[in-house]
Amino acid sequence: MACAEILTVGSELVEGSRVDTNAAWLARSLTKLGFKVNRICSVGDETRAIQKVIEESLKRGPKLLVLTGGLGPTPDDKTSEALARATRRKLVLDNEALELISASYKRLHGKGLVKSSRISAPRRKMALIPRGARPLPNPVGTAPALELKHGRTLVYCLPGVPAEMRSIFLKFVRPALQATGKPMATVEVVAEGIDESSLAPALKRLSRNFRVEVRSYPSGVGVGGRVRVMLVSPSLTELKKAKRVLEQSIRYLKRRT
Amino acid sequence: MACAEILTVGSELVEGSRVDTNAAWLARSLTKLGFKVNRICSVGDETRAIQKVIEESLKRGPKLLVLTGGLGPTPDDKTSEALARATRRKLVLDNEALELISASYKRLHGKGLVKSSRISAPRRKMALIPRGARPLPNPVGTAPALELKHGRTLVYCLPGVPAEMRSIFLKFVRPALQATGKPMATVEVVAEGIDESSLAPALKRLSRNFRVEVRSYPSGVGVGGRVRVMLVSPSLTELKKAKRVLEQSIRYLKRRT
Repeated sequence: MACAEILTVGSELVEGSRVDTNAAWLARSLTKLGFKVNRICSVGDETRAIQKVIEESLKRGPKLLVLTGGLGPTPDDKTSEALARATRRKLVLDNEALELISASYKRLHGKGLVKSSRISAPRRKMALIPRGARPLPNPVGTAPALELKHGRTLVYCLPGVPAEMRSIFLKFVRPALQATGKPMATVEVVAEGIDESSLAPALKRLSRNFRVEVRSYPSGVGVGGRVRVMLVSPSLTELKKAKRVLEQSIRYLKRRT
Repeated sequence: MACAEILTVGSELVEGSRVDTNAAWLARSLTKLGFKVNRICSVGDETRAIQKVIEESLKRGPKLLVLTGGLGPTPDDKTSEALARATRRKLVLDNEALELISASYKRLHGKGLVKSSRISAPRRKMALIPRGARPLPNPVGTAPALELKHGRTLVYCLPGVPAEMRSIFLKFVRPALQATGKPMATVEVVAEGIDESSLAPALKRLSRNFRVEVRSYPSGVGVGGRVRVMLVSPSLTELKKAKRVLEQSIRYLKRRT
């Protein structure tokens, strides 16, 4: 199964002033495409910190590394520079990126949303990308996304603004990734009124007897609570058999309670 | 400033079926206490993966490492074992933990929430902790939390159920951590109707002329959007001065727009 990692960049994340919904959205999208997301990391807007996490990830060599955040025009946007350093590439002014940025500001200017479409220094900053990276158009905002193949890893840098991130992912990243793996199937069984510790032996047998991963998420305790059990497997047949056995166990445990 | 790292464990997180609110809550709480959270990581319920991330974190040696998830009675709960392996400690049956677990189930039994208060194998599993770790009572659920000093790092393992995690953090972790550092102060200035790229030079000057970190969060584009600017500094005086200058710049830019 193809492995992926996600790196979200932003001091607001490591300070907890914003919940990282980008990571969850990307993780869900990649999982659906058949990727196994091994790790999600968040770091603040510091070039060194971002660079280090990228270097570590590239050393592990996942098939895919998706970053979000830090691509904008302000000085706290440092992802391109960090990616350039981590991959030992020069940061170069990319003509294609410059054209994308120019087109965005012309569009905004045409709508009366910006005073001028001139490419000022902060706007030009968004066209400084690691040599060899390919800029991807941003249909919602102005900062181009980046695609870079480094070693065996395909790296995408997407903006941190959720609407921009999603739009670029759906339009450019997902089509490039399709058909890379077989997604896992999942079924959920909810056990009401059973304590998680009483259910544990049945779950253990289940993962021993079937080719399924078994995960349990309790809420509340004892018979007042409920346990959501997720069964995950690439095989639908195994899932169905395991589900039937689990439901039997739950009925049995409830009669005993 | 004392550094901290957060590691959240759970396949539901790396598969994106749940948004990681625990990480944000902990990050906010630690930041308020004066910690600098350098990194947040999430991995799935796999002993090797958890072990590896803990080992990497301990190598960096932050003052504090807080983990959530994987402490329960079911086979997909693997945090204690991973922590034991990462710290080269034996996993031992801890009497104090056993007593805490026993007391929890007696309490639940007294309320009629579990059929029996007997310590079954899955319940006993929660008392298997790395040698040298100290179990902490769980006022909400049944799985004790863990405290372990390893090298220069103080490690806390908290349950993944948010109510349990928060309760233990507030009751036991926060009091142990207080007075470790001076928290950063933050002020927010919202620039309405200014494009982020036009604001960028003012933000650059600000971080050059004052002892403040400057972060900008745009939403929307051009004059139709807004930019939230956060100024962060340990010094309230610097913050006030920087805020005044930024507000002047915004007024100036708006007149020009």
